[in-house]
Amino acid sequence: MVMVLANGAPSPLTLAVTQDGRQLAGEIYREIEFLPVISPHTHVPVGLFADEESRLGSPADVFVTSDHNVLRTLYSAGVPLEACGLQRLQGDVVVPDARAIWRVFTQHLHLFWQSPTLLWIKDALWHDLEIHVPLTMQSGDEIFDELLAKLASSEFSPRGIFTKFLIETLSTTDDGVADLSVHESIRNGDWAGSIRPTFRPDDLGQIQRPEWRSALLKLGELTSGRVDTYSGFLASLAERRSQFIHAGATAADHGIESPYAERLSEHEAGIIFQRAFAGRADEGDARRFDAHLLMVHAGMSCDDGLVMQLHAGALRDHNGPLASDFGPAIGGDIPVAVDWTRGLASLLSSFGNSSSLTLVLFTLDESTYSRELAPLAGHYPALRLGSPWWFHDSPQGMRRYLDCTVEVAGLHNLTGFVDDARNLLTLAARHRLWRRAISGWLGDQVSFGTTTIDEAVHVARLLSYDLARDSYKLPVGAS
Amino acid sequence: MVMVLANGAPSPLTLAVTQDGRQLAGEIYREIEFLPVISPHTHVPVGLFADEESRLGSPADVFVTSDHNVLRTLYSAGVPLEACGLQRLQGDVVVPDARAIWRVFTQHLHLFWQSPTLLWIKDALWHDLEIHVPLTMQSGDEIFDELLAKLASSEFSPRGIFTKFLIETLSTTDDGVADLSVHESIRNGDWAGSIRPTFRPDDLGQIQRPEWRSALLKLGELTSGRVDTYSGFLASLAERRSQFIHAGATAADHGIESPYAERLSEHEAGIIFQRAFAGRADEGDARRFDAHLLMVHAGMSCDDGLVMQLHAGALRDHNGPLASDFGPAIGGDIPVAVDWTRGLASLLSSFGNSSSLTLVLFTLDESTYSRELAPLAGHYPALRLGSPWWFHDSPQGMRRYLDCTVEVAGLHNLTGFVDDARNLLTLAARHRLWRRAISGWLGDQVSFGTTTIDEAVHVARLLSYDLARDSYKLPVGAS
Amino acid sequence: MVMVLANGAPSPLTLAVTQDGRQLAGEIYREIEFLPVISPHTHVPVGLFADEESRLGSPADVFVTSDHNVLRTLYSAGVPLEACGLQRLQGDVVVPDARAIWRVFTQHLHLFWQSPTLLWIKDALWHDLEIHVPLTMQSGDEIFDELLAKLASSEFSPRGIFTKFLIETLSTTDDGVADLSVHESIRNGDWAGSIRPTFRPDDLGQIQRPEWRSALLKLGELTSGRVDTYSGFLASLAERRSQFIHAGATAADHGIESPYAERLSEHEAGIIFQRAFAGRADEGDARRFDAHLLMVHAGMSCDDGLVMQLHAGALRDHNGPLASDFGPAIGGDIPVAVDWTRGLASLLSSFGNSSSLTLVLFTLDESTYSRELAPLAGHYPALRLGSPWWFHDSPQGMRRYLDCTVEVAGLHNLTGFVDDARNLLTLAARHRLWRRAISGWLGDQVSFGTTTIDEAVHVARLLSYDLARDSYKLPVGAS
Repeated sequence: MVMVLANGAPSPLTLAVTQDGRQLAGEIYREIEFLPVISPHTHVPVGLFADEESRLGSPADVFVTSDHNVLRTLYSAGVPLEACGLQRLQGDVVVPDARAIWRVFTQHLHLFWQSPTLLWIKDALWHDLEIHVPLTMQSGDEIFDELLAKLASSEFSPRGIFTKFLIETLSTTDDGVADLSVHESIRNGDWAGSIRPTFRPDDLGQIQRPEWRSALLKLGELTSGRVDTYSGFLASLAERRSQFIHAGATAADHGIESPYAERLSEHEAGIIFQRAFAGRADEGDARRFDAHLLMVHAGMSCDDGLVMQLHAGALRDHNGPLASDFGPAIGGDIPVAVDWTRGLASLLSSFGNSSSLTLVLFTLDESTYSRELAPLAGHYPALRLGSPWWFHDSPQGMRRYLDCTVEVAGLHNLTGFVDDARNLLTLAARHRLWRRAISGWLGDQVSFGTTTIDEAVHVARLLSYDLARDSYKLPVGAS
Repeated sequence: MVMVLANGAPSPLTLAVTQDGRQLAGEIYREIEFLPVISPHTHVPVGLFADEESRLGSPADVFVTSDHNVLRTLYSAGVPLEACGLQRLQGDVVVPDARAIWRVFTQHLHLFWQSPTLLWIKDALWHDLEIHVPLTMQSGDEIFDELLAKLASSEFSPRGIFTKFLIETLSTTDDGVADLSVHESIRNGDWAGSIRPTFRPDDLGQIQRPEWRSALLKLGELTSGRVDTYSGFLASLAERRSQFIHAGATAADHGIESPYAERLSEHEAGIIFQRAFAGRADEGDARRFDAHLLMVHAGMSCDDGLVMQLHAGALRDHNGPLASDFGPAIGGDIPVAVDWTRGLASLLSSFGNSSSLTLVLFTLDESTYSRELAPLAGHYPALRLGSPWWFHDSPQGMRRYLDCTVEVAGLHNLTGFVDDARNLLTLAARHRLWRRAISGWLGDQVSFGTTTIDEAVHVARLLSYDLARDSYKLPVGAS
Repeated sequence: MVMVLANGAPSPLTLAVTQDGRQLAGEIYREIEFLPVISPHTHVPVGLFADEESRLGSPADVFVTSDHNVLRTLYSAGVPLEACGLQRLQGDVVVPDARAIWRVFTQHLHLFWQSPTLLWIKDALWHDLEIHVPLTMQSGDEIFDELLAKLASSEFSPRGIFTKFLIETLSTTDDGVADLSVHESIRNGDWAGSIRPTFRPDDLGQIQRPEWRSALLKLGELTSGRVDTYSGFLASLAERRSQFIHAGATAADHGIESPYAERLSEHEAGIIFQRAFAGRADEGDARRFDAHLLMVHAGMSCDDGLVMQLHAGALRDHNGPLASDFGPAIGGDIPVAVDWTRGLASLLSSFGNSSSLTLVLFTLDESTYSRELAPLAGHYPALRLGSPWWFHDSPQGMRRYLDCTVEVAGLHNLTGFVDDARNLLTLAARHRLWRRAISGWLGDQVSFGTTTIDEAVHVARLLSYDLARDSYKLPVGAS
């Protein structure tokens, strides 16, 4: 599309014709390629950073067994999850053979053609691990050996990677009642790396689950209040949030199927809490209490400043039999349509106008980008729109995101890139993919004539670095 | 995508490779750049055209205070609406300082990067106002002074702009009980400009609102019938429509949250009307009566020939507290998902096969373009699909619209461009943006090989001029 | 978008800039242009292939009267269906004048600009029929005469076309109680062409319809069991499926409004069946029984190996009055939003992990591509995602499909191209359009740097030929 609007050029349409989007993309990318990495939301286990001796594990651990994207793709082709190194919940523990598992992956590389997962892996092998033999079915064994050696080295230890990848700060995701001692010891130790926890209190919601009560009791132990009353529960939640903040957290996170928030009266909330405490809450109670808890957490975020993230729209464990056999997070979560506009109306009426709240939304329903999320983020001061999430964190997914949100939400209501990484080793590759994608998109915009190369480079820096840091209230220049 | 299908070319794929989409776009644009402007649906106040002395106001009025897109973007960044010149409904009236308001805008230009609003403004400044200093934070004050002078001039008076912008005809939007006297005096006066009212009877629906009764009584005053009975109400509606037609209207418009039409029995409609007249209608009554009224208006359109427009899918005043403080249309309306297929089934079964009806649909839910609207418009004789609306009236929004509708709906079931302008000063820029967008899209189609440059130029003219004129039953060659 | 990830290239971004997507597309297309055609799902009547003397009919029959896309487009412009050769269900039979009907079409060619239907027709005229006069309003009559002669020739007889178009195998769609004798006689005859039936038992569902009982009784005649009991019905269904398999079928197909499957208890299913048999089933019974039947058929597919296709999301006969006058399939079916994730949860929990089932999904709701279908197909072993269907079988529809599915579902969980043709004469053109579209898309991927030209050619072959053959369990190298 050629579109040139006055930027001082004598003949806009001529200008557009002389500029090639792909060349411009290259120019832009070179300006942002080596910016530090801000990683405000990951699922990397904090334990990896506990000390210098920590290692990521075998190539099978790193690239196959722990990656739900790899698991689901292999499984879709009929590969049993056991062959990928997963253990059945019931049954004998099988000692995994790392080389055999890796071979299962490399024998099925064709399944991953154009998948972001394989793009990350290939790019990490090439650029970060400097393994310049292309990954193929044939080269798999040779690369396994190289990987094994490198993963055992200090250079590719978690702390080594943190430095090597120019990571400025990285946030983990931690249960509401998680042990924060590793976070605290890293914080108080000699190592300069900035690792932060994120408060994810999903374990303290869904009150109909049998596990809820033990999480609640654990919360009681971790805090000074009593948790057998609703008001005590609220006080403990607030105290727990402040413990996370003390351990470095700047954000909370909530994983929900449907984005729906609605305040209960204190009376009603109290009654449901008591019913839950007595083990008699049902699905309806849980749904209403979760909707209420979102209001509670939004209010607490206004008070304590934790950035509030909502990750909504996944129907978890869609494949019931497989989840029964192997547990959650094995690639069987499937998105559903969501209604952000009506679902968040109460929450935004109460807190959306507040300058104390930063609320970041992530969707799996791309039809809501232009219909709901861009208009919402483009209006409410508290809102920011998170980057393309999960299934949509891919080249085309990024393009659709940029196409559908920038014009309406406005650049400054986006968070920049949030990698959501589980695999530390491909974290830099994910950021490079984003940086290449935005460079490509920005090159096209310059070519169309609606912006200039100077503006585009500035925007690329914002989308690669500044917006993420600012959105998550991270300090300027490292921890 | 390269796709060439037989057009007499000896080697289609070769042909495609030799043609560059961007160069073709330039060729196409040059053929349509100076076509007159058809503007069949705007929110420009008719009073602006009342006489030669009328002026648009200050740069703050024109570009900031009256533009909900500018307001929402500034507000999303934490700028108070008062600083944009808005008055609180309760509270002291503040005399706005136009220069200060303009500065608020120019100090926040970065928020508008790639927004259509800023593209329009920049393009209007450059091409129409011939202010060739690029708009920046620094140049803001200087440009304010230039704008102030130009806006005071006769050249940039509303009537001056109408002529300067080659506007052939422009329709305003007027309440069902609006005063049409300005329309009539323009029509009967010396000025040659063609300004037409549009009948928008939303004030006569939503019978549960307290304001409804006064609108109804006003309708009674404006017409010869009595409005205390349902049949009298219908007769008055029909009479009122004919008054609009007499004042130049060719179209009616209906703003609705959900596109749902269903006929009530006369008996039931009468009972609900009586309940409403007595001030006792509830939400359910209102919803059913509004669904019924759409059927009534569709029938009347078959009789009197007014083009029927539906603008559906905005949840109005989503930000309750802000709407309470400042009133409606301040940027806090948010779209929701809609179901055109089921919602309009009754209406289309009754009237969709009629050659007497033209029904134009506008959506904020882009997922319905390819799923519902293109198939509907590509089947029912009465239907036309309106152009990208509101949040989607942007470069990427236009591309998605063209990609998702042309192949299935067919070009001749589209309306061409409908600008929906509030700001007269950027109206020409909006048409230029559309013309550039379609030129870019058409250039790509030629490059792909599925059409020729000659066809593309022809189509560009249709999309820029003819289709809008024909869809809205506007006379050939001005008023 | 420029994105290059390590493929052994010394400088990825440089590489990208030197490769032009359109040239690459040409290279790719040349490698797949002449691959044989796999056509696993069509609505071509089997009778056309009954013997060598069979002919397609007049140009009006072939291109207008039998094509719902042409009918709907002409009708949307106000052309009466009678003028297109359709007969009213009630009323005198009108002898159609083929030349007059053809003229109606050629006088309205402008309505079809960029429609896939016209792209197919033009391409078939040029490449297959070798009529090198471009189709225009003026040339229509001349082309009619040429067509008339060619359609009468043995070269363009159905069997001639089958050979000429390099069709390797073609499946028809046949009612559950259809007469399979023509299929059998072709199979047992001298002609080498591979024509297969598809079991489409929609006539045996929707138990509230008056026609259901006669279909059921017919089923009873065709099979050895009794159909007045639920268990007898099931046995007859299974027997009927095996008759289809014996006649060459490799697939079943189910056309449903909403993709919803849920198993009833045998007891409940039996009760509903008896109610239906007594002619007293209502809409609710029908909905539940249809949801149950999908479970039944999925189970039977696991047993007998028939590929199970679901075509979901069309609200049939949206235009009630027109359907009453002219019957179904005249262009008045309109899509609705669907929920694959929840709707198929039961079915996939029961059968989705089975390697015995191949379940192919087709959608008219493109918002489900990235939200539901790609994640589902990218996880469940039994699932494959069908190609862009019906309204979306167009250049832009194909691009959206590829953009939204490949990265997440994985190439090997797609079926390749399924033409769904009704018009045998444009069948090769439809495959060429697909092949050009994928070549264009793949050229862009190579240009972006995320794959190589060699990989792209390999993928193009898969998408053009192998995936369709494998998905539908068709033998290697013809029948």
